[in-house]
Amino acid sequence: MNVEIITIGNELLIGQVVDTNSAWMGQHLNEEGFDVIRITSIQDTADAITAALSEAVSRVDVVLLTGGLGPTKDDITKDTLAAFFNSKLVFNQHAYDNMISYLKGRVKGINKLNESQAYVPECCEVINNPVGTAPVMWFDADDKIVVSMPGVPSEMKLAMTKEIIPRLQARFKTGHIMHKTIQVYNIPEAVLAEQLESWEATFPNYMTLAYLPSPGKIRLRLTAKTANNEQANKDFERLTGDLYQLVGENIYAEEDSTIEVLLGASLKESSTTLAVAESCTGGNIAHLITKIAGSSAYFKGGVVAYENMVKQKVLGVEEQTLISHGAVSQQVVEQMAIGVKDLLQSDYAIATSGIAGPEGGTDEKPVGTVWVAVAGDFGVLSACYQFGRIRERNIQRASETGMIMLLQQLKKRSPHV
Amino acid sequence: MNVEIITIGNELLIGQVVDTNSAWMGQHLNEEGFDVIRITSIQDTADAITAALSEAVSRVDVVLLTGGLGPTKDDITKDTLAAFFNSKLVFNQHAYDNMISYLKGRVKGINKLNESQAYVPECCEVINNPVGTAPVMWFDADDKIVVSMPGVPSEMKLAMTKEIIPRLQARFKTGHIMHKTIQVYNIPEAVLAEQLESWEATFPNYMTLAYLPSPGKIRLRLTAKTANNEQANKDFERLTGDLYQLVGENIYAEEDSTIEVLLGASLKESSTTLAVAESCTGGNIAHLITKIAGSSAYFKGGVVAYENMVKQKVLGVEEQTLISHGAVSQQVVEQMAIGVKDLLQSDYAIATSGIAGPEGGTDEKPVGTVWVAVAGDFGVLSACYQFGRIRERNIQRASETGMIMLLQQLKKRSPHV
Repeated sequence: MNVEIITIGNELLIGQVVDTNSAWMGQHLNEEGFDVIRITSIQDTADAITAALSEAVSRVDVVLLTGGLGPTKDDITKDTLAAFFNSKLVFNQHAYDNMISYLKGRVKGINKLNESQAYVPECCEVINNPVGTAPVMWFDADDKIVVSMPGVPSEMKLAMTKEIIPRLQARFKTGHIMHKTIQVYNIPEAVLAEQLESWEATFPNYMTLAYLPSPGKIRLRLTAKTANNEQANKDFERLTGDLYQLVGENIYAEEDSTIEVLLGASLKESSTTLAVAESCTGGNIAHLITKIAGSSAYFKGGVVAYENMVKQKVLGVEEQTLISHGAVSQQVVEQMAIGVKDLLQSDYAIATSGIAGPEGGTDEKPVGTVWVAVAGDFGVLSACYQFGRIRERNIQRASETGMIMLLQQLKKRSPHV
Repeated sequence: MNVEIITIGNELLIGQVVDTNSAWMGQHLNEEGFDVIRITSIQDTADAITAALSEAVSRVDVVLLTGGLGPTKDDITKDTLAAFFNSKLVFNQHAYDNMISYLKGRVKGINKLNESQAYVPECCEVINNPVGTAPVMWFDADDKIVVSMPGVPSEMKLAMTKEIIPRLQARFKTGHIMHKTIQVYNIPEAVLAEQLESWEATFPNYMTLAYLPSPGKIRLRLTAKTANNEQANKDFERLTGDLYQLVGENIYAEEDSTIEVLLGASLKESSTTLAVAESCTGGNIAHLITKIAGSSAYFKGGVVAYENMVKQKVLGVEEQTLISHGAVSQQVVEQMAIGVKDLLQSDYAIATSGIAGPEGGTDEKPVGTVWVAVAGDFGVLSACYQFGRIRERNIQRASETGMIMLLQQLKKRSPHV
């Protein structure tokens, strides 16, 4: 089933805002068996909306619009949609109640601008938007579905997940789809693909495999199009087991979450705590971990030891070790991990020291060389990586690698996590 | 002059990659007087490319394509472009030389896949791509300009900046455009707009003002369409001076850079150093600062003091202060700033302590309450902010506010920075 997305807003065209909504929608629709074949970003004028919408409905049966709504600028989009469907704007009690219930306790009274949000094209069905004041509008005409949503990501995501995707599935009988995502790291896609050729050949014919690579890691997504849940789960289990035989060392997760979420869940479940000592990652590991709500339950804190003096004075790295081996060395990164674990009295620690670049490389230790260590009741483990030449990517990969190294140790302790 | 952008690639449609290229292109084209009126993302099939391109050239005179090139998948895009322009693929020495010079020293020998990259439609002009192997192709037919670029952001950006925008300017005589960007913070857009009404009325008629808001800050972009540089600079200067009279306290920059770049430049220029003590920002300030290449010249490091014990033990915050005033308090955040400045022996320090949310708020200190302190030879300064309910936004705004607070102090010392 083909779908098109239209995102409305001048802010997208002048580059003030990056359109992340489309990617999120594309991903979630794709997972549920819908194919997004085109994404169009347009100005918020009646002409632009009418033209893009007319073209889209001539190509596909489902068109999803985001943006162009909100108290100060919704008139154009709603008027345009009303005209497009030969309808007119009318007061809608559902939209009004939704807005009142959202505004309750947030603002004193509602103003005229808000009130105008309760007016929608007569021919549409208003879908609940519990996290905002703008209406979500569902149009069903001439066998085409057009849905207009606010551009605020949190509002769009909730509407998509709770209402729009389930309704589309029911309407278009896309069939039951199940996914199993297995995440691997530290193996190039081409090498992995070669190693998994025979494995993929054992897939049942209702199941497909997708490689979703990003720097340093690859998500393997198994998709089963079947109504037989039991059989699918059995096959998922068999294939996962076989995959461990082939590339077990590279697997770090059997679910589709970010590394920081997985690590946080694992620490929380075992009621243990973490501290970090970061040189080349410069606070990024701490940042990724503390982005997760509730991380204070397992994250004690960290030391960003950018200057060597900080490594010595705060983390207790020996001056002689720094002189003999250099800051980017196994000895130093291991002392950093032990040092921060002792200082912050945590159960586990992650430490990084490397050359993020673009300057600072040598023949022996070129840009991209990173030592990563983890410490815990298992002792200290460390490894050296060569990530490449791009500073931002080196920082991100070093951060993720440190978290994966610890995650792997935690998994050994409780393999069911 | 209207422009359309077409981004090619299934990875964009299934949401594996967020299309950041379009926003970058939109921003830079907009600054140079071109209006992007539509952005279209399509599958990498001949049909999709031909359809989108035909539609775009029917609407505008300039169409910029990114993606669909590269050693493994460029054939479709190049074949399709050749067919579109009634041309054929031929070996191009310029493209070949470009590729060879890029690959030199990187890989041993070139393979067949690479070699195919030297074949381009006969009717196009190949533009230099010094940072990749894929050709940049410039088509000029029937008064329409079509440019095909690789989707790799670094390659696209260099081609756009060095070649494509200057060529478009020359070709379409867009006229000379100058910009002056002034950045303000901590003032709502509606309030600012009201305060600046009379100021905007004094603009010469060749100059326009754009509000470019993002959470917590607004970029005011003055655009002058004139060939008279001297006059424009004089007017920029007068208007900037007047703006200081109106909202001087809120201005933190007279150039269009990120806060971390501005702060880094200011520290570097004064040969001073910085340390950070982060509670609610959880390492994000350190991360933002160390994302900048060369930050080791002025950044000593930091302490992420997530747990109160870390505030006490590492930063020397007094236990009694924590008990009496709570972690989110003026007293604690000031002690954190002084503590990290002393510990890491830096010239300046930034500290944060707040409730990022979504949990942990109280009636007295609701979610979004953040104390920020800066310390230096000026003493210690602190302020309390209420940012709102969204965790990620609170972290980002607290980080930026801390950096701006220090930047403002540094500017007082050397007002010409």
